[in-house]
Formats: sequence, structure tokens, C-alpha cells
Amino acid sequence: MGLRMTAGTLHGLGVGPGDPELLTLKALRILRGVPVVAYPAPEGGESFARAIVAAHIAPEQGEIRIDVPMRPGPEPAAIYDEGAARIAERLEDGRDVAVLCEGDPFTYGSFAYLHDRLAHRFPVQVVPGVSSPMACAALAGRPLARRDEPLTLLPATLPDEALAARLASGDALAIMKVGRHLPRVKRLVSRSGREAVFVRRATLPDACACPLEAAGEAAPYFSMVLVGARP
Amino acid sequence: MGLRMTAGTLHGLGVGPGDPELLTLKALRILRGVPVVAYPAPEGGESFARAIVAAHIAPEQGEIRIDVPMRPGPEPAAIYDEGAARIAERLEDGRDVAVLCEGDPFTYGSFAYLHDRLAHRFPVQVVPGVSSPMACAALAGRPLARRDEPLTLLPATLPDEALAARLASGDALAIMKVGRHLPRVKRLVSRSGREAVFVRRATLPDACACPLEAAGEAAPYFSMVLVGARP
Repeated sequence: MGLRMTAGTLHGLGVGPGDPELLTLKALRILRGVPVVAYPAPEGGESFARAIVAAHIAPEQGEIRIDVPMRPGPEPAAIYDEGAARIAERLEDGRDVAVLCEGDPFTYGSFAYLHDRLAHRFPVQVVPGVSSPMACAALAGRPLARRDEPLTLLPATLPDEALAARLASGDALAIMKVGRHLPRVKRLVSRSGREAVFVRRATLPDACACPLEAAGEAAPYFSMVLVGARP
Repeated sequence: MGLRMTAGTLHGLGVGPGDPELLTLKALRILRGVPVVAYPAPEGGESFARAIVAAHIAPEQGEIRIDVPMRPGPEPAAIYDEGAARIAERLEDGRDVAVLCEGDPFTYGSFAYLHDRLAHRFPVQVVPGVSSPMACAALAGRPLARRDEPLTLLPATLPDEALAARLASGDALAIMKVGRHLPRVKRLVSRSGREAVFVRRATLPDACACPLEAAGEAAPYFSMVLVGARP
């Protein structure tokens, strides 16, 4: 007599921008209920997403660590092929797997690469999370956008011309992943005459916000520049 | 002998996009601890922000309801002047007040108007929340933005030319507050040749997502059109 196995569900869990208290009730419930958690981690380092929820992971839960090389440029597809294959094995066995995602799973997250590879084969549920631009605005004490103002999120890794064009537009901007691009972003914002604040490691214990001019020349990867809409 | 009263703290609490489980642990802790909650409500109707967290509000907590007229156009400043004055009274008495904010407090929220009027006089703490574009992407099962793609949030209330220019740009877009603008947004998206999905009341029990072409002509206020980045 054949027994048909029901596949497990792939959960994309947004765990928020860093403060463990910015986890949602839903993400916490699912995290506690799944037999397996998976997360990307910088090669040889700690996974930030896992660190955020470490207090809620039980020793009996299985863990799948996906090592991601920390060099600029596109990540090799093979890393996500292999990570997705390891996750698929558990899903095929009928076990649910929760992928831990910093911030929100579908806002610049690497979860998209796993989703691309698995969503056509398995049931998927995504739990949205608090995204870092919202956390930076809260820390800086200023609205991101009001009423009819467009708000553009964009990575600091874009070329100078692209960033300059956005600064010229007058839109409210959240320039993400500033890190080593800080001197370049400072120069471009200063040329544009726009007013901006720099936010470093929002929601973490050493978070700070200051006018962009007052920011130094070095910034951690998790830092952001918020530019207000041109009045 | 004079007794110097310490002013209360104004909390801007993001309560997420609608599903009560998308509340953060931090917002829940603060909500349970404050003596007074405040919230905007459509004149004569129920406050959506309050409804999201109704299960956590105790009878002994004071409530400040700010009635907001539901007509298009800018809201009269007098409404927020008066609401802020009522909140300030409690803060002056040394009581903390939590303003309940749908989604995230600083992403198109009316909290900005209260913040404008109170932040220079009282301590403020803002708890970021899950914003509706992230919730809509989760429901639709598609990333909002990847890698270096700019993502623009913009209200459907913008004029045709502004929406058409954004659609021509190739950026990933989240067109918010679609409501009665749905037929206009459908027409503009169709002319642009962009691919888009319509998401209705994400995270609520009657939520649904479909290709924009398949959406009807009527939409609730809480609905959104997600346009993927042009490949």
C-alpha cells in the first residue's frame, strides 16, 4: 500500500531590521513551529538573520546554513542552487522549512533567489517584515514620505549617474546598503544641494543618526542615507 | 515645595497592514504598558488601526479618537491641531500616549501631522511597522525589488502625467491607495505595456491577488498595484 507524502511548506520569514523585538507575532509563531530553519550567512561569519531570532531557536530544530561569499558582484547561482536543493530535500520529506530573512523577504532579500528555485514545486508562505528604511526613519525621527510624495528606495551600489539623476528628481529617497559607498554618496548629495540624514545600524544597540555632512567617511554595510522630498 | 512633573512619552506605534499577527513584539509591549491610546478614525466609522489591536486594549486604558473627515483633498490642519492638543494634555500630566498607526508610522501615515505638532515639546519614540507594499508582495508571491533595482512607492492619487512618467521609467513600482483610481491606473499601466498585479486588502481575510487586467473596475481604498522592474 503506497503512502503519499504531503510536501512541507516553505516559509519566508521577515525577521525585521535587527532589534529582536521588531519580530512580528506571526513570524515568531511560525519560527517556533517549524522543524527546520534555513538562513544565508557570510562565509566564515555569523548569520545576521539568525542572530536576530537566536533566542527563539530550539536545539532540536534542524538548521541549514547557506554560505554566501562576501565579495562584490553577483552571487554565483550555484550557491542558491545548492541551498535550494538542501531545503527541497526537507520539504520533500514533508517537513516545513522557515528561511530567516533580515528585514522583509521580498525587499532586496536573497530569499527571492530561493523562491525562484522552489516556489513552482512547493507551497510557499511569506511573512512580511519591518524593512530597514522604516526603521531608519523611526530612529531619525522623520517621516519617509507624506501624502502624494513618491518615495524611492535604491541601493548605493548604483553608478554615480543613476544616483545623481534620482537626487535631481526631488523625490524622497532612502539610499540603502551605503557601507563603503559613503564618501561617494556624501559627494553626490552635497552636489545636489539636498538635505539628508545618515543612519547607522538602526535598531541595534549602537545605532545613531546625524546630518549627512557630519557623518565620517566609513560606514557599516547596514547604514542608510535618507533624503527628504524637495519641498 | 514644587514638584516637577516629568512629561509622558509620545509613542508612534506601527501596527502593521491589517493582520493582527503582523504586530511586532515591541509594539505589543508598549501598547500594553501605556495608559492612553490615540488613533485617527474616519468620521462616524471604525478606526482601522484600533481594530487591528483591539484584542490588546484594556478597558482601563484611556482612548483619544481623532475624527478625520473622509473627503478627498488635504485634511484640515485644525483636526490635527485639536487632536495634538488632546494628546498634549495627557503628556503634560506625565502619562505616555501611544498613537496607533496602520502600517508604518512614517510611511504616508497621519502620524507625521501629530509628530510635527508634538515632537519639539515631548519625548518621542517611534516603533516601525510592517508597511503595506511588503504585505502585498508577500500575498502576491513576488519580490518587490532585487539587487540594484530602484523601487518607488507612490500614491495612485498623483495626476495621470506623473503616474505615466513613473511607468515609463522601468522602475519597480508599488502604486498605493488605489481605491477609486483603479480604472485610471489600469488604463495607464496597459498603455505603458508593463506587467502588473493587483492586490486587494492584503493580510485581511478576504485578501486576493490577480493580474491587473483581471481586476474589476472597483477596488477598496486598501488595495495596491505592484509593477515589476522592467527586465
